[in-house]
Amino acid sequence: MTASSIKRFDIIKVSGAEGHSTADALAIEEPLEVRLEYGTENERTVQNISVTMRTPGNDAELATGFLFTEGIIKNRQHIADAGHFFIACAENKENVILVKLKTGVIPNLQNTDRNFYTTSSCGVCGKGSINAIRTVSAFQSRKDDGMCVNADILYSLPAVLRDHQSAFAETGGIHAAGLFNADGDLLLLREDVGRHNALDKLIGAALNQNWLPLNKSILLLSGRASFELVQKAAMAGITIIAAVGAPSSLAVELAGEFNITLTGFLKDNRFNIYNAAHRIILPVHEATY
Amino acid sequence: MTASSIKRFDIIKVSGAEGHSTADALAIEEPLEVRLEYGTENERTVQNISVTMRTPGNDAELATGFLFTEGIIKNRQHIADAGHFFIACAENKENVILVKLKTGVIPNLQNTDRNFYTTSSCGVCGKGSINAIRTVSAFQSRKDDGMCVNADILYSLPAVLRDHQSAFAETGGIHAAGLFNADGDLLLLREDVGRHNALDKLIGAALNQNWLPLNKSILLLSGRASFELVQKAAMAGITIIAAVGAPSSLAVELAGEFNITLTGFLKDNRFNIYNAAHRIILPVHEATY
Repeated sequence: MTASSIKRFDIIKVSGAEGHSTADALAIEEPLEVRLEYGTENERTVQNISVTMRTPGNDAELATGFLFTEGIIKNRQHIADAGHFFIACAENKENVILVKLKTGVIPNLQNTDRNFYTTSSCGVCGKGSINAIRTVSAFQSRKDDGMCVNADILYSLPAVLRDHQSAFAETGGIHAAGLFNADGDLLLLREDVGRHNALDKLIGAALNQNWLPLNKSILLLSGRASFELVQKAAMAGITIIAAVGAPSSLAVELAGEFNITLTGFLKDNRFNIYNAAHRIILPVHEATY
Repeated sequence: MTASSIKRFDIIKVSGAEGHSTADALAIEEPLEVRLEYGTENERTVQNISVTMRTPGNDAELATGFLFTEGIIKNRQHIADAGHFFIACAENKENVILVKLKTGVIPNLQNTDRNFYTTSSCGVCGKGSINAIRTVSAFQSRKDDGMCVNADILYSLPAVLRDHQSAFAETGGIHAAGLFNADGDLLLLREDVGRHNALDKLIGAALNQNWLPLNKSILLLSGRASFELVQKAAMAGITIIAAVGAPSSLAVELAGEFNITLTGFLKDNRFNIYNAAHRIILPVHEATY
């Protein structure tokens, strides 16, 4: 994280019956508007796609990762450029990002007014939400893909993530998404006040490096695993997700449909496996399951 | 929370080198679509307002709280009815909620395609986001309103919240918003996988009881305090917010503009005060600040 992800405030720290003034670092939260430019050589359209409250930094990754995980763009080759091209006032020059698509590339914008997982034929339900993702996802992991990870490796990941979370160390209040290989080496780390933004930044960075599908990597989430986070991981072809917090019911159901190994409550040499346990190897002897 | 907020799954619990199968409770996450009906006696319009991933339960409160905190409706008297009136398929009968406005009431829908705090004249920036809220908020707390709370009371709140969080106890993965009086008595508690939903449910419930503005209450948040949560609290006239987690920069700045006492990291007889410290009374002797 850059220095611009943190801001210092004068606060009062209270402990028991004592209070004292001090300076404290907080994670910056600012709106980011994502705009998309596309069309022919002669006729270009610029459309506002979304506004999200995010921590500044890696904005181009956030925008491209968001466009990809929402199914609006299909791959990195569709993107010509991405950057802060608009300056409406002094305060917001870093808060608008424009993603330019290559000539002739048509984005899938039919669902941008609402998240695409709500537009299944069934209407609004969990099953419909899962089906909607299957129709737009480019990747589907197979049960026999050979990917696996040792439980001892999983146990080691949260400490690695925490050690590299510079903004968290200062603020105690920022989410992280980390990408590791099966040996537990950290490949990518992104932080944000919004956990969905941290993951979009990470997937955007991986997309820029042509790493997708991420079917040989482990995704570590610093918090809980919601439907939205598993959906983004599924879009990127991730097969193993480890979360420090709890998953939701729909997150587990989506992971099940996509053959994703979902683990939660990863801390203190413990975790729960919710799906596809065959990718987890217990260290000393064969698992009792 | 009702039993429908929890779902049981067969999982594998891993500890060290051992794994064993067990049943585990997870917080349910399902989409909820909010629709708004309004118009004259002869001509009614139904409009889709938003879809949110939420934990089922208190859906009418969630919908009315959301409409109020987004500035779409101004008060409870505008609402004629709210309920699950649509059944598109067996799976989604509980996932669409319709709020009917009284004849002639015109909702403020100019910002529903994006959150209203992004539509200031300035464009997209934190300062503009704060200004946008000032224009739609019905309440503005004064510095000399006489509201205050003893630090000992604040210390006691997280345990009370936790004791009453039935869904959290079972799942370990659900957010809560609690409303307390200055004596530390719990007035309202709402839970949801989405912390913004938990707060919308709480404010919707308070709105239904004609309790607004909530300027004699303390809001306790089980997690972090983001801009969005402080914005909702400001819309409800709340003057003291206590969060178990960290605030963001923009949350502190918004609280400052609205004279809201914002405290964070409330645990283990400690907390930080970010704004309007005059409402916090230290127990034994005068504060050193």
